Amino acid sequence: MVIVMASRKKEDIDNVVKKVEELGYKAHLIEGVERTVIAAIGDERGKHRLQSLESLPHVERVFPILKSFKLAGRETTMEDTIIPVGQHAIGGKQFVVMAGPCSVESRDQIMECAHAVKEAGAHVLRGGAYKPRTSPYSFQGMAEEGLKLLKEASEKYDMPFITEVMTPEQMPLVCEYADILQIGARNMQNYGLLMAAGRTRKPVFLKRGMMSTINEWLMSAEYVMSEGNRQVMMCERGIRTFETETRNTFDLSAVPVVRKLSHLPIIADPSHGTGLWEYVSPMAKASVVAGAHGLMIEVHPKPSEAFSDGAQSLKPERFAQLMDEIRPLVELTGRTLEPTSAAATARGR
Amino acid sequence: MVIVMASRKKEDIDNVVKKVEELGYKAHLIEGVERTVIAAIGDERGKHRLQSLESLPHVERVFPILKSFKLAGRETTMEDTIIPVGQHAIGGKQFVVMAGPCSVESRDQIMECAHAVKEAGAHVLRGGAYKPRTSPYSFQGMAEEGLKLLKEASEKYDMPFITEVMTPEQMPLVCEYADILQIGARNMQNYGLLMAAGRTRKPVFLKRGMMSTINEWLMSAEYVMSEGNRQVMMCERGIRTFETETRNTFDLSAVPVVRKLSHLPIIADPSHGTGLWEYVSPMAKASVVAGAHGLMIEVHPKPSEAFSDGAQSLKPERFAQLMDEIRPLVELTGRTLEPTSAAATARGR
Amino acid sequence: MVIVMASRKKEDIDNVVKKVEELGYKAHLIEGVERTVIAAIGDERGKHRLQSLESLPHVERVFPILKSFKLAGRETTMEDTIIPVGQHAIGGKQFVVMAGPCSVESRDQIMECAHAVKEAGAHVLRGGAYKPRTSPYSFQGMAEEGLKLLKEASEKYDMPFITEVMTPEQMPLVCEYADILQIGARNMQNYGLLMAAGRTRKPVFLKRGMMSTINEWLMSAEYVMSEGNRQVMMCERGIRTFETETRNTFDLSAVPVVRKLSHLPIIADPSHGTGLWEYVSPMAKASVVAGAHGLMIEVHPKPSEAFSDGAQSLKPERFAQLMDEIRPLVELTGRTLEPTSAAATARGR
Amino acid sequence: MVIVMASRKKEDIDNVVKKVEELGYKAHLIEGVERTVIAAIGDERGKHRLQSLESLPHVERVFPILKSFKLAGRETTMEDTIIPVGQHAIGGKQFVVMAGPCSVESRDQIMECAHAVKEAGAHVLRGGAYKPRTSPYSFQGMAEEGLKLLKEASEKYDMPFITEVMTPEQMPLVCEYADILQIGARNMQNYGLLMAAGRTRKPVFLKRGMMSTINEWLMSAEYVMSEGNRQVMMCERGIRTFETETRNTFDLSAVPVVRKLSHLPIIADPSHGTGLWEYVSPMAKASVVAGAHGLMIEVHPKPSEAFSDGAQSLKPERFAQLMDEIRPLVELTGRTLEPTSAAATARGR
Repeated sequence: MVIVMASRKKEDIDNVVKKVEELGYKAHLIEGVERTVIAAIGDERGKHRLQSLESLPHVERVFPILKSFKLAGRETTMEDTIIPVGQHAIGGKQFVVMAGPCSVESRDQIMECAHAVKEAGAHVLRGGAYKPRTSPYSFQGMAEEGLKLLKEASEKYDMPFITEVMTPEQMPLVCEYADILQIGARNMQNYGLLMAAGRTRKPVFLKRGMMSTINEWLMSAEYVMSEGNRQVMMCERGIRTFETETRNTFDLSAVPVVRKLSHLPIIADPSHGTGLWEYVSPMAKASVVAGAHGLMIEVHPKPSEAFSDGAQSLKPERFAQLMDEIRPLVELTGRTLEPTSAAATARGR
Repeated sequence: MVIVMASRKKEDIDNVVKKVEELGYKAHLIEGVERTVIAAIGDERGKHRLQSLESLPHVERVFPILKSFKLAGRETTMEDTIIPVGQHAIGGKQFVVMAGPCSVESRDQIMECAHAVKEAGAHVLRGGAYKPRTSPYSFQGMAEEGLKLLKEASEKYDMPFITEVMTPEQMPLVCEYADILQIGARNMQNYGLLMAAGRTRKPVFLKRGMMSTINEWLMSAEYVMSEGNRQVMMCERGIRTFETETRNTFDLSAVPVVRKLSHLPIIADPSHGTGLWEYVSPMAKASVVAGAHGLMIEVHPKPSEAFSDGAQSLKPERFAQLMDEIRPLVELTGRTLEPTSAAATARGR
Repeated sequence: MVIVMASRKKEDIDNVVKKVEELGYKAHLIEGVERTVIAAIGDERGKHRLQSLESLPHVERVFPILKSFKLAGRETTMEDTIIPVGQHAIGGKQFVVMAGPCSVESRDQIMECAHAVKEAGAHVLRGGAYKPRTSPYSFQGMAEEGLKLLKEASEKYDMPFITEVMTPEQMPLVCEYADILQIGARNMQNYGLLMAAGRTRKPVFLKRGMMSTINEWLMSAEYVMSEGNRQVMMCERGIRTFETETRNTFDLSAVPVVRKLSHLPIIADPSHGTGLWEYVSPMAKASVVAGAHGLMIEVHPKPSEAFSDGAQSLKPERFAQLMDEIRPLVELTGRTLEPTSAAATARGR
Repeated sequence: MVIVMASRKKEDIDNVVKKVEELGYKAHLIEGVERTVIAAIGDERGKHRLQSLESLPHVERVFPILKSFKLAGRETTMEDTIIPVGQHAIGGKQFVVMAGPCSVESRDQIMECAHAVKEAGAHVLRGGAYKPRTSPYSFQGMAEEGLKLLKEASEKYDMPFITEVMTPEQMPLVCEYADILQIGARNMQNYGLLMAAGRTRKPVFLKRGMMSTINEWLMSAEYVMSEGNRQVMMCERGIRTFETETRNTFDLSAVPVVRKLSHLPIIADPSHGTGLWEYVSPMAKASVVAGAHGLMIEVHPKPSEAFSDGAQSLKPERFAQLMDEIRPLVELTGRTLEPTSAAATARGR
């Protein structure tokens, strides 16, 4: 922590030094040309208390030196985390594609959709049974019935499935069915939910909040991990800005940033990232090349009749075409769309 | 809902008209100079399904005409909602001040704080027993012990108290103690929590999410209200922008906007809004004049030793000075700091 | 400047220390528990070159200690700058109101408007002769003809006037007529224009860019001042965020922030800040109380027929009512709406 | 233009209809279930005047149907614009790479740099002679001396060059030397400068403003084009958001959006887009795949000694490696890094 003093009087400085030492840090003085700076040396885990020193009258600013995440960071774990899901492994050489509708709407719809995405080469089925909707009057999902349909489709087409869990109460039920637990963007800082996910043994798919910095997002992964579950994957899905041509601003640079700061896998979701089906394919391909470990894509047999997110859903034939287009890019970046032995290896650990 | 066509071909238009009618709306065509527009006439509650029409190839854009909130809006309820809390009434002639520390840290701290804010003229005690923290390693609050201390302080100093509830599971316990339930900014779209609050009979204090539009914020109030609890008050506490001189950008214009769109009371929180104690007093005073129904202010006996949010906490003597400064402003705007008979009246309904 | 090292190897650190010293700074090492930090001691004026050290492989981050403005800051000039304009003085005890239409549209319109705002008690007339418009097909202003009409109105109603200058070429002509030069939000970082304004002897009214931090805005004032013109006043007019209920997000906290960091006067423009006439009055009153030195308000005799910005313009009668409402607030904050002797004094310096 | 009424009274509606007709539009009424909507039919070029109707008391909202750009849009020009620059052609099958230092710092530096980027396969040399800097105390560029050095390097290495022009006054001089005129992000709405560029016959490279919507950016292209110069290319270089891990948020989705809305070429600048050299290569590659027509990359022989933007500059060897990496991606997307006959063709028109 670095404390910039507004005053250069000895008594003001001594007073801050004393406070720093009382909080268990060593104080180190640097006399600059125009400012005196106090470096507080020690583990900054307790730094939020140091931050309170900003309220002292002669302190101009207090800023931290260290990133605040530990388990999620490269410093404690150099090697990339690889997460096995069925015969697949996320975070390694296999490039993993998750696809399916925004919401499960009926048995026919999810079966048709699962069939189509499987045929096209997707690895994991996605579909929402519990839907966080801005309006209480919108379709809220089929709940357990949706989970059962997802399970049925998953078994029939031999694809693990991912679905969103919205409350700690839903956790046990969703865990009974799902292969991957999705934490939605609006719940990225729902700490009770994060901790509940951290107490399960299911892989967690953590969407970035639309209002969240990459640092805060990794801190939310830290919440899950600090409860004992290290199988967290990150998902960039766009942030909120002033631009309105796209539904969100897809922050694709987050892919290389997360890969630098963290060992966790990072998946790109250009469906939410752009919000319009016409932009999904170019941004999906860009995501492969930028270094993402996988994609999440919304696919619906009849987008114009979707209960939710129709505007950003691909039709099955467009999705199949996208799969064809990403294959050479995946290979060019030294990866593969086929399951590798990494899943078995990762499971063996 | 207004649908802007990209094509002017009869068959493309007929196709969209058919879809609109299938969803239960009446379609109305407008031939402009360069565009054909289709107005879908009907209650837009189901509008999220209409939005999916954007995925049709010849549709350029779909946009809604109506605000999506109902219960929270002025259209269903013209008259301002007044919420009784103890001998006070929020939303009417009384200007209500809520003050106290960010977190309850110890018996001494909360007692000293309650004493000080009561002396200065505050009406409601605030204090966090459950703390949503960005880091799992930061102080997470004193939990039930904190609730007991708040209750004790509340009774000793005859002030109702407000405290944050973070999960549906905490709801029954918090309801046993607290007079007002606070939903924090990070949980503004935690729909499970909103619905749980909607099933209690306690007043709900709904903080605006830091990346939430005013429309989404009112939709979150709608979630609470649609479960049966109409006693919701809104709290502007700053939004996230690119500016870094302040912790958040305090969107004070939200006060007149909410007053125009909604009948719910609106409280201003300049402590979180600015994040620095030096800016709290001017912005608190500005809030009174802009039309807020009350203030929430963080006060701590020793800000530099606070477990959280020290930098934005006022010392008791500064808070007392602020109360002196707002009194004439409250009066000038036709209101009062004293309890009025409105509380009794409101309770009587 | 503080340099956070990613490496703790002696040779990596020595390498950075050498670079720091080559740039003319003294290097000071701090060994933390997890990081080594190098403080570069010296005047940071050349800091943009130090920032390039971030490209060295073992450097994690470089951050500045000092604010980058000098002339605009409190450190070189403690005392508030007071700027005389006609019989008025901006930045001192007099609270100054500037009002008028967005654009000069005709002789009748500007005369009617000037008469109305003078009657209501405004001090300075505003009106655009050169209009920066998003579209090349929108009304671009009456140019010199507009300046002449402003001058005529200004003389008839004995009010100095302010108008926008958009290019260095317009500067001499605008200086012939205008009492205050307005630099618009879109030109806040048009450095050629800032320097041209800095070479005149007219007061400069510097609007905040919609994309600009307070720090960058003060750096733009620094551009004007570094050319010799110290008579700069700042104008907060809203920044761009994701919120769409208001045209911009009026960052009223910028008022106390600028007053803390700088000695320059700060004016609030709630017309652009909110973009809707209904919100102008409450936010104008809030601005007085937050500590602004004055207001800029758009007034138009027939807002619905305005060539530009009609939606945010007050009718003359509403403006008169606003003047009545701010008077007690001005007085309560120890100021006055009448010209004081400060103008004479300021001119005497 | 669509006008949503707040009132359903006949006289209020008649009044608005009358205003709409006075402005030269045909009014068309739509009676919805809860709202009356008035469609104003006619060319919306004058729409900024219609927008003023929002100030009428019974009008809730006014919103436009049409995009406001014409010359820059796909509707007037379906076919992609191809801009010849020397033996190269931007906007067609050739993928064009522009590279060089942020600023020209010395003869040696620009020569070394030009040599290196030419060797690696870049097509156009970039370098700043006039630098828009946040601080008046930072290095402001070598001015005409810099232009001469760029010309010399350009001739020696047979590469056209691009450089920024900051004021209308500099235009004639810069036009004497440069092959492409760059308008910087801070000047994107400096309309005097845009119009001056529109009166030249040089290709214009228009950077997106950091807080500008895609619509406003295309409107700025419209300013240049409406003066007669149709050779405009767009450059996405990141927008300002709350995220701080990157210098800007690189809005790569703007590439497919601009390609959909406009026929103008779109270039990606991942150096400014990310602000850190480590992220430049992945985002450059992603840009190729997302559909950009070219890249602008900052390259400096010694980034840690750069006068500006060192942190985001690639070393020559890294740039050469990037060129090797993008070649297969360019080919995979059906394009080429070699000059094609399109340049000759385009010139022939």
